[in-house]
Amino acid sequence: MTFHATILTLYPEMFPGPLAHSLAGRALERGDWTLEARQIREFGRGRHRAVDDTPAGGGAGMVMRADVVADAIDAAISDTDTRPRLMMSPRGRPLTQDFVRDLAVGDGALILCGRFEGVDERVIEARSLMEVSIGDYVLSGGEMAALTLLDAVVRLLPGVMGNQQSGTHESFEGGLLEHPHYTRPAEWEGRSIPPVLTSGDHGAIVRWRRDEAEHITKERRPDLLKDRERR
Amino acid sequence: MTFHATILTLYPEMFPGPLAHSLAGRALERGDWTLEARQIREFGRGRHRAVDDTPAGGGAGMVMRADVVADAIDAAISDTDTRPRLMMSPRGRPLTQDFVRDLAVGDGALILCGRFEGVDERVIEARSLMEVSIGDYVLSGGEMAALTLLDAVVRLLPGVMGNQQSGTHESFEGGLLEHPHYTRPAEWEGRSIPPVLTSGDHGAIVRWRRDEAEHITKERRPDLLKDRERR
Repeated sequence: MTFHATILTLYPEMFPGPLAHSLAGRALERGDWTLEARQIREFGRGRHRAVDDTPAGGGAGMVMRADVVADAIDAAISDTDTRPRLMMSPRGRPLTQDFVRDLAVGDGALILCGRFEGVDERVIEARSLMEVSIGDYVLSGGEMAALTLLDAVVRLLPGVMGNQQSGTHESFEGGLLEHPHYTRPAEWEGRSIPPVLTSGDHGAIVRWRRDEAEHITKERRPDLLKDRERR
Repeated sequence: MTFHATILTLYPEMFPGPLAHSLAGRALERGDWTLEARQIREFGRGRHRAVDDTPAGGGAGMVMRADVVADAIDAAISDTDTRPRLMMSPRGRPLTQDFVRDLAVGDGALILCGRFEGVDERVIEARSLMEVSIGDYVLSGGEMAALTLLDAVVRLLPGVMGNQQSGTHESFEGGLLEHPHYTRPAEWEGRSIPPVLTSGDHGAIVRWRRDEAEHITKERRPDLLKDRERR
């Protein structure tokens, strides 16, 4: 099954952008996934193809029009399209590795990239858009968030990582941050690799890595340990 | 003061990427900020300019060498360079809007983009790199995370947003998610704009927006309200 991403944006020229390179770029060339960036402005109103208007109730900035966004969505998907419909927004459900994995086993996603102050709430409701946030900060628009989400998803698609990366022992697998890594040279600027890693004692190495992962998670992200206990 | 970003990466061709467009792109052209993407491989070892090696203790994937990364860092910055030295990593300190604001009033950042399984822990310690995470998911490398961080920072630099966006009433200001937005048409698919927003009663509008922001935060992100109480 191929993963099909459809992006609705005012900046289609931002895609595939960084995803044209490296793992994601080679997977795109092979057809392991597809990417279509559609220009919302084609559905703009009037001679100037307006996509936004001033906020009801006043205030700074502009708001994307419900009718324009709805037309762009309706033109991009058919009634039989079962892909999740996402909207990148700092108000959304936080993106997690579990959510990324769920998306990666699906058939793709429609992703609306908001701009300006926001998007008229009525189209979010009427088209059942799921708001997704990549983190607790504000971006210039949803485009960078959509690229980030796709980067996370595409690397998990079958065949994409190959032998380059394992994808199994990494942060958030098992609810923990990853243990530290070391490689040659054995001695560098007076700093050595922890002896256990060069001991050849496989059981001790596994225990050391698990202990380090738990220690670093406890120290840096106690919130993740709490989430883990709740599972 | 101009914000200078120096990126250390194996994929300099990913930069400026999406940041060449829109607000960030125009600001880059004007010289409000600068971006230099440096190829780590120039400091690789041997005929093949190797930048990585197998992990000490075994396991899948490859680890970026401490000596190679240190050489790339040392060549990119001088002793008088006071910019923060960041490394994008899922194990890092979570990026928040407060952190973004702190970076935006500084003179720039050096950002190391990890790849493969990770980076030798010794260079993170020896060069005092601050690990920063844009969210609880795994990317194919630090590049997309660096682009995301820069997008968030650049829009806050003086003169970048102009009148296009206010930057004042938005998610995470005051520790809350943003209230819903509406604009014309007043009636769309049988859905109306909430009457208070068209009442002309400015006080009532301010109260409605604050109540909605609190309500949506309580419903979607009770963790943010807890953080807010702690301040």
